[in-house]
Parts: sequence; structure tokens; C-alpha cells
Amino acid sequence: IGEDDADGVLDLVEDLKPADVADLIEQLGEEDTKSFIRLVGAELPAGALAELEDGARDTVIDALTTEQLAEAVTELDTDEAAFVLEDMTQEDRDEVLAEMPIADRLAVRAALEYGEETAGRIMQRDVFAAPGYWNVGQIIDRLRSAERLPETFYDVYVVDPTYKIIGLVPLSRFVKAKRDTKIENLIEDEPVIIDAGMDQEEVAYLFEKYNLISAPVIDEGRRLVGMITVDDVVEIVHSEADEDMLALAGINDDNSINVPIRKVARSRFVWLLVNLGTAILASVVIGIFDGTIEQMVALAILMPIVASMGGNAGTQTMTVAVRNLSTRTLTAATAVRAVYKETAVSALNGVAFAVLMGAAAALWYLLLAGQSAADAWALGGVLAAAMIINMLCAGLAGILIPLALDRAGQDPAVSSAVFVTTVTDIVGFSAFLGLAAVFLVG
Amino acid sequence: IGEDDADGVLDLVEDLKPADVADLIEQLGEEDTKSFIRLVGAELPAGALAELEDGARDTVIDALTTEQLAEAVTELDTDEAAFVLEDMTQEDRDEVLAEMPIADRLAVRAALEYGEETAGRIMQRDVFAAPGYWNVGQIIDRLRSAERLPETFYDVYVVDPTYKIIGLVPLSRFVKAKRDTKIENLIEDEPVIIDAGMDQEEVAYLFEKYNLISAPVIDEGRRLVGMITVDDVVEIVHSEADEDMLALAGINDDNSINVPIRKVARSRFVWLLVNLGTAILASVVIGIFDGTIEQMVALAILMPIVASMGGNAGTQTMTVAVRNLSTRTLTAATAVRAVYKETAVSALNGVAFAVLMGAAAALWYLLLAGQSAADAWALGGVLAAAMIINMLCAGLAGILIPLALDRAGQDPAVSSAVFVTTVTDIVGFSAFLGLAAVFLVG
Repeated sequence: IGEDDADGVLDLVEDLKPADVADLIEQLGEEDTKSFIRLVGAELPAGALAELEDGARDTVIDALTTEQLAEAVTELDTDEAAFVLEDMTQEDRDEVLAEMPIADRLAVRAALEYGEETAGRIMQRDVFAAPGYWNVGQIIDRLRSAERLPETFYDVYVVDPTYKIIGLVPLSRFVKAKRDTKIENLIEDEPVIIDAGMDQEEVAYLFEKYNLISAPVIDEGRRLVGMITVDDVVEIVHSEADEDMLALAGINDDNSINVPIRKVARSRFVWLLVNLGTAILASVVIGIFDGTIEQMVALAILMPIVASMGGNAGTQTMTVAVRNLSTRTLTAATAVRAVYKETAVSALNGVAFAVLMGAAAALWYLLLAGQSAADAWALGGVLAAAMIINMLCAGLAGILIPLALDRAGQDPAVSSAVFVTTVTDIVGFSAFLGLAAVFLVG
Repeated sequence: IGEDDADGVLDLVEDLKPADVADLIEQLGEEDTKSFIRLVGAELPAGALAELEDGARDTVIDALTTEQLAEAVTELDTDEAAFVLEDMTQEDRDEVLAEMPIADRLAVRAALEYGEETAGRIMQRDVFAAPGYWNVGQIIDRLRSAERLPETFYDVYVVDPTYKIIGLVPLSRFVKAKRDTKIENLIEDEPVIIDAGMDQEEVAYLFEKYNLISAPVIDEGRRLVGMITVDDVVEIVHSEADEDMLALAGINDDNSINVPIRKVARSRFVWLLVNLGTAILASVVIGIFDGTIEQMVALAILMPIVASMGGNAGTQTMTVAVRNLSTRTLTAATAVRAVYKETAVSALNGVAFAVLMGAAAALWYLLLAGQSAADAWALGGVLAAAMIINMLCAGLAGILIPLALDRAGQDPAVSSAVFVTTVTDIVGFSAFLGLAAVFLVG
């Protein structure tokens, strides 16, 4: 690329699958991507556009001319085309659409009418459907002669005269059937059918639960309007799980390598600011006990241990809770059992670490700092009591906060961590310093 | 269930899909699960066994008799059967295998020979393959008359006389072709073929990258031995992403609702113990500066802010790095760019929060604590400098530690968090208290 070897680059691109071209582009920096697109131009495989990450795709879209982009989008399936166009400004998008053939333009426009992250947006509109009274032979003859068929499909959809779906027949069952078998006699019982307005996370859940490969999509009138295939769903499963993981760390936006530095810094700033609020709150709590610390500096040395252990125990419980909520094993029916269980786990580990750390602190101050035995054991006792209190509160906060956020219709992955940390910091510092003020000082 | 209404329960189970029965069982406690299995017995759909979570499955397996379990396992696909049996003791497994028909027993034994989490373990062994010189008509006739065919398949695999795979033809292309077309002329170029020894994570990566529905599996001699379908892969994608998320929070084991409390507590204990080590190390660092704190208690009040902001910035960077490593957008080719970028992001946010918090602390001590202007601004300056140092180190640690662990062949999700927290705690406390010792005290 550095040497503008256009032929060499073109040969390379032709040999690769679209997904590999996308990978290649993602490895390039912004400038190299632009040079690459200038060299490749219209030869860029349309499929690569759909496979790119958001950041890299923005760069590629900017580098392509409107005509090149329109041509590429026309080659894509409707759902992929909508996916590529959805993040563009209204104006740019209209320019591209205007360059597309009318049939594709209408299909993409229709797809864009459905809300983002709904089944209607991710479905493809070309489906193969047959009336229930046809037999296998008729359908095969039709498949062999028909012009406009979806390139790939996995089931024959069976519809009634008003195009309402009656059922579906997997192709592997279809090819095993005799020519004179009526298609409606091959139907599987109770197919899973998707509403066009269904959230894509719900769609992914159904696919995963029932091991689906493809599912028909219907509109409000229960008429067949498209199909969703599992390859789209794999990406959703992956990105939803990634979203949960990133959200727990306070990242709510695409932070991949191809997003500009300033955008990444800004997206992380908000979370750090919220966390600063939490940290200041913890400092205020410590500030209340400044007189106590002044009399006994050992408290300042030990207090981070109490807060940190509570924070980690809370994070463990919270992460499990968020994950079990998203896989739906934590439900209204199991909530009480889960709360009981997490409380028991926190209590067990709380006592274990209280004994461990209480004894360690007492011995440290007895042997190394040369305190009197009574003072050292009193300090160990206060530390142990504070740890039990904080780890128990951590466990409760770790399960109750995600549950409450979920019940309130919020995404527990996004804001649980702040609340849990606030609880464990404040309880940790105030329990330890408060007990110390009463039992050790003055 | 409470009332031992066997007929009612059986009716219910018959109406549900296996995945729904599994969900139902997961919602029950241990005792109720046992009663449920006693009532349902041999009527438990075999598919439900494969869909259950580990914890709940153990309970169900214990409650079933060996004969019932053998019968259920025989009904399953080979890969599912191996999955159900893999966690049992050798002895129990042999008892179950002995009750199974010989053909199924051999197939399951063969599957168990492949390592856990390899392609050989998750593949199913029944495939449909045809020689390249057959035409579409011959194959359809064969499909209609053959006895032992896989229940569901998505491609016709094309093999040479030694059963080596030449290519594959998706069923939707197959049904569109005329009867006299030779199957080898329908082959897609360059199919993705899986080695039986390939790691399942690699398999999932290929399926997701190339949007595969099914792929043939070959042995070392390149002979066709089975196929992997996408429904198995969706579960792997989900569980690998979950594993990363849980590993970052220090959970390396199944912690779902159906695992006993003591087992959960034990699995979390290890991580908390490692974290205790980190926390103690931080305390030792603070202990070095006990004289400094004694002279200026404000330091004890402010020091958690420095450590906490560093910890959060480090966690953000690290989570993105771990995720980009697992989706392979962070590679050797992009590593330098990623390190540069994370450093820039940390520097930007470090300066922003240093200014914000330095000024806030100075004003706080000027206005509320009645310090002199010079002292208050000196304190604010030290806090700001410590925050810049710590957030910069946090960003570097957040990207370099996962990269180094990955390069060393370790899973970065499992141990990054401990190292990053250690760095941010120690740098945070020592930078703040060290600068304070030099510039503010004495």
C-alpha cells in the first residue's frame, strides 16, 4: 500500500473472502485505510462493508464516493444494507439511496422504518414460501425454475392464501420426502415465529434457547414479511455479551482501535466523573473521623483493606447477578433463593476473611509495632467486625441492586457498579472508623 | 409438584419443548428437582438434559436411575451425549455406557476420546455425504430411501472415493438445481473445514467470521468424520463471552443459582485471597508514610480518591483490551497503535481530572478547613500531580498487562485485574504520599 501498488493490492483483495478484507482494513490506521480505498475503489467487496467494525466502517464510507457506496449497498442483503446506512446522517443516506435501483431502495427504506435493534431491522425480506396444498414435487419444480429466490434459506415456509404463516419445513426434511407428499403434512409442530417489532435481544434469546437456524418474521397482521437467520444472531449474542462486560467497566460506547482518541476519552470521562463523585463521598465519610485517625494512624493504613475486600466481594456477586439476569436464570421465581444464597456466601467468606485478617493485623501490631497485647487484639477485633459487616453488605448490595434496577426497567449492567462501589466504600470506611472511634480511641 | 400430582406434571411436561422443561427445572430448588424427577422419571425429555445448566444437571443425573439415564443419553445426538457424560466420574459413566446399545456406546466413547473443548467433542458424527460424480437426481432418490440419515443437516458434503472432503453444497442451492446436474459442479469455492482437534473457541471464531451454518470436520488423514452446526456454536460464543466477563470479576467457575452455597463460596474465596494480598501490599506502602499522615490527616482523607480513580481508569482500559484481544481486533499488527492510543486517552483524562480535583481539594481546604492559601494550593497541586501519574500508569498497565499475558500464552481475562489493581493502588498511594512527604510536610 505504501508504494501505491494498485495491481498487487487488487489481486490480494480478489483472493480474500469479504470477512478477511474487513479484518485487513481494521488492522490499518486511518490514513492507510483511505489510501487502500482509493486503490481498491469499486473492487471493494460489498460484504466487507457489512463485516467492518463501526469505527473502521465510518472511515471507509467517508473514503468511498456516493456512487461506489450505492453500488456496494445494492449488492448487500436488505438487512446488511440497512445496517451500513443506519449510522449515516439523513442527508448522506438519501444521496446514497437516490443512486440505488428503485426495488432495492424501497426495500432498504422499508427496513429502516423498523426501529433500531428490532427483528424488522435485522430480518432479510426475500423468503421462499409455498401454499400448504402444494406437494413436494410442485415445490421442487418451482424452485428449479423461479427467478427471484433468496440465495440461501434453510426452511420452506408454508403459508395460507392470505400469506399468513401456517408452519415451516426444514430443507433436510423436505429433501427426504417423496414427490407426492403434501407440504402441509411435513410441518413441524409449533414453529417459533418472530414479531417484526421484537427486540433483537429477545430474538437472540429465542434462537439460543430453541437452537434455531432460521425463523419466519410476521407483521401485526400475522403475515409473513421476512426471515431471520442464525448468522445475524451470533453477532447479536456476541455484542450483547460484550456490551454487558463493557458496561460493567463503565464503557457505553464503541471503544475499538479504530475510534478516534478524543471520542474514546470523552466516552470514558462520564463514568470517571460519576466515580469521582463516589470517591469524594467516601472521602467525606473518612473526613468525619479525622480526629480518630489523628489519634491512631494505623486506622488510615488498614482502612483500604476493608473497603477493597468489600468492593471485590460486591463485584463478584454483582457480576454473577448481571449475567444470570441476562441469561434469565435469575427471575422472579428464583430471586428469593438467589438473595438467600448470596447472603450465605458473603457471610461465609466474610467470617473467613475477618478471622484471617483480624488475626494478621493483631499480630502485626503486637510483634512489629510493639503495641500492648490488649490494644493489638482490640484493633484486630474492630477490623474483623468491620470486614464481616462490609462483606455482608457487599453481598446484599451485589444482588439487590441489579435486581432492583432490572425490576425498574433499567439495564443492570450499566449502573450497578457505581451503586455497589458506593455502598461498599461508605459502609467499609464508616464501619471500620466508627467502631474504632467507639472501642479504640478516646 | 408439592401435591405429588403425577398426572398433572406429566401432562405439563408433554406439552413443553425440552428447552422449556430445562428452564422449569432450573427454577426449582434441589429438593423440588428431586421430587420432580421422581414424578416424571422416564418421561423426562432427553433434550432437556442437554439444555440444563451444570448445577441443575448434576442434581437431575443423581436423581435418575442408571437405566433411565442410559435411555435418555441414547436418544441424544452424540455430541450432546458426550456433553452430559463428561462431568461424571469414570465409574458412573461406565455404568451408564454399559446400559446403552452397542452402536451408540461406541459413538459416545469415540466422542469422549477427543479432548474437552475441541471440535471433535462438539461435532455430531452422523453426516450426509455423496461422491462427486453423482447427480442431483441420484442424491435425492438416495435421500428419500436411505434409512440412517442425520435428522437435520444444511449441506450435502461431497467426498472422493477415500472419503476425503472435496467441497459442500448448501441445501438451498441443491434444491434449486436440475436433476441431471453433477453435484461436484455445484460446490462452493473454498469451504471452511474444521480439524477435529481444533479448540472450540477457534471454531466459534471461524463460524462467526464467515457466517457459517454448518461445517465439516476432518481427522488427521483429512477424512470426513463429522459436522458442527451453528446451534452448538451460539452456546460457545455465549459461554466464552460470559467466561471473560466473570473471569474479570474473579469468578472462574459456574456460579449459577443451582450450584451449592459452599462450592460457590469456595470458588470465590481464592480470588478474594489474592485480592487480600494486593490490599495488604497497598497498606504496607501507606505504612511507609505513617509519619507523613500523622502530620497531615488530610492526606488520609484524600488518598482513596487517587487510588480509586486510577483503579477505574485502569479497569476501563483493561476491559477494552481483554475484549479486543478475544475478538482479535487487538493483534501484533495493531498493538503499538493501541498502546499509543490508550496512553493518549489516559493522559487526556488524567489532566482533566487532575485539574478538576486539584482545584476542588484546594478550595475545600481553603474555604472549609481554613488553611492558608499557599498550603491549600500546594495540597491541590500534589493531588493533581499524583492523579496524572496514577491515571497514566493505569492506562499503561491496563493495556500492557493484558498484552503481556496474552503473549505469554495466558488468558488475559483471568489474571489482568489483579495486576492492574496492584499497580494502580501502589502507584496511587506512593505517588500521592511520596509527593506530599517531599513538598508538604517537614
